Amino acid sequence: MTEDVVAPDLTEDALARLQAAGDPRLKSVSESLIRHLHAFVREVKPTMPEWFAAIEFLTRTGQMCTDERQEFILLSDVLGVTMLCELINNQAGEAVTSNTVLGPFFVPGQPVLPMGATILQREEPGEALLVHGVVRDAQGAPVEGARIDVWQTAPNGLYDIQDETAPRGHLRGAFVTGADGRYEVRTIRPTPYPIPDDGTVGQWLKAVGRHPWRPAHTHFMVQKPGFQTLTTHLFMAGDPYLQSDAVFGVRPDLIVTPEPGPRGQEARYDFGLRTAVGAAE
Amino acid sequence: MTEDVVAPDLTEDALARLQAAGDPRLKSVSESLIRHLHAFVREVKPTMPEWFAAIEFLTRTGQMCTDERQEFILLSDVLGVTMLCELINNQAGEAVTSNTVLGPFFVPGQPVLPMGATILQREEPGEALLVHGVVRDAQGAPVEGARIDVWQTAPNGLYDIQDETAPRGHLRGAFVTGADGRYEVRTIRPTPYPIPDDGTVGQWLKAVGRHPWRPAHTHFMVQKPGFQTLTTHLFMAGDPYLQSDAVFGVRPDLIVTPEPGPRGQEARYDFGLRTAVGAAE
Repeated sequence: MTEDVVAPDLTEDALARLQAAGDPRLKSVSESLIRHLHAFVREVKPTMPEWFAAIEFLTRTGQMCTDERQEFILLSDVLGVTMLCELINNQAGEAVTSNTVLGPFFVPGQPVLPMGATILQREEPGEALLVHGVVRDAQGAPVEGARIDVWQTAPNGLYDIQDETAPRGHLRGAFVTGADGRYEVRTIRPTPYPIPDDGTVGQWLKAVGRHPWRPAHTHFMVQKPGFQTLTTHLFMAGDPYLQSDAVFGVRPDLIVTPEPGPRGQEARYDFGLRTAVGAAE
Repeated sequence: MTEDVVAPDLTEDALARLQAAGDPRLKSVSESLIRHLHAFVREVKPTMPEWFAAIEFLTRTGQMCTDERQEFILLSDVLGVTMLCELINNQAGEAVTSNTVLGPFFVPGQPVLPMGATILQREEPGEALLVHGVVRDAQGAPVEGARIDVWQTAPNGLYDIQDETAPRGHLRGAFVTGADGRYEVRTIRPTPYPIPDDGTVGQWLKAVGRHPWRPAHTHFMVQKPGFQTLTTHLFMAGDPYLQSDAVFGVRPDLIVTPEPGPRGQEARYDFGLRTAVGAAE
């Protein structure tokens, strides 16, 4: 007997019961969920103890979540689902920079700094790095008045909000471009760090032989009315985790190579913004 | 651009990273999960707010779970997944009774009652019902020494463990068959009742236009070494929810028609047990 023979009517029945759904989007998402979930179950044929282990895994994942820890987002991240959603919603193109995951460490409302200012609020042992370039529209023209939020870890692998000893706002900043579209941020080279791996997600990663590390990166969010918001990172060429980012956040167009320049180590990167859907061209 | 074009390498990468999984079963289940989950996401193309609503739904589902409430099992139930797992693990056959969901109200360790005893520990307004029949093997021969656990709701729709006023063990009992394989239970006709619908599962049911009701049923678990344990219900013909059980537990071979007999209303049902895998025939 093949798996196709086990109660085909059960899946049909579950789908048929959605006929009265009020919201067409909820109806179609629920239909797709039931079809794919049943196909998964029919394929793996879980034993009842395996089914219960899955129930317990999901329950513990929910119960680990607090105001400061979102284990279901982490699960979505390590399964590649968060990044897939980002890419579905924000497709890169010829002159448009790839989006990547927002992550849990963005803090909105940072004060705007003078262009070219440092985002360090205390000395750090890391190598100084100047990140600079131009914010452009999809036709390559400079974008004036774009707000750029920047955030990254210190050499100890921690963001300011994870590190009680760090001043708030350390290694964070916001900048607004002028008519030339240029931006310039003084920072230090970021370092790789592991995602939190003391929960259910860490258990799964370990069980399937995966590490929890992310390659070193600096986060950027670039916003201007009329454009799709760009949520991205810049990664450093040569990082050992570029091919195995625990959250699948690396896109080839997001890797920069810091090089010696007139002002020390410099990484140059131009951000390409996509015109917002519905905005006048 | 079709959905197939969005980062096909992301799914391939997520699959390739499972190469180091130590346990081959975990590896194949994880591969299947990633393939089906990515296919679902590529099909529905969630917006980022929709993705976050899903994260919040799963988080709240986990956080509703307590020692007495398992919202993820309930979610599995209303999506048809629990029943699908039961049917995959316990396929009915010519002379083998269908399994159905165990549900959260089974209490192990009930004392064995004399054959034909009532399972009521107090008077109830329900209609008296005698359920009886023979436990048979797959060849139709009576099975001696089978333990039959029985449990059901009172006319108020509550199991004893949900009802502070009910004596513990009310409407529960266990029986052991003799050489003739016969069993006989005095009870009352069960009543329909809704599954708990004040949580995330109830929200989803309401949003898709589904009711939370289960058709009236009496639970049975039939166990004997050498046979697969049968976990099932008997449903009452004519129940208004037979076609729309909230947890998809109804199978056609599990519906009985109580009829007037020499001892009042009687429902006759023979349970067919499957020989355990690996047991001598």
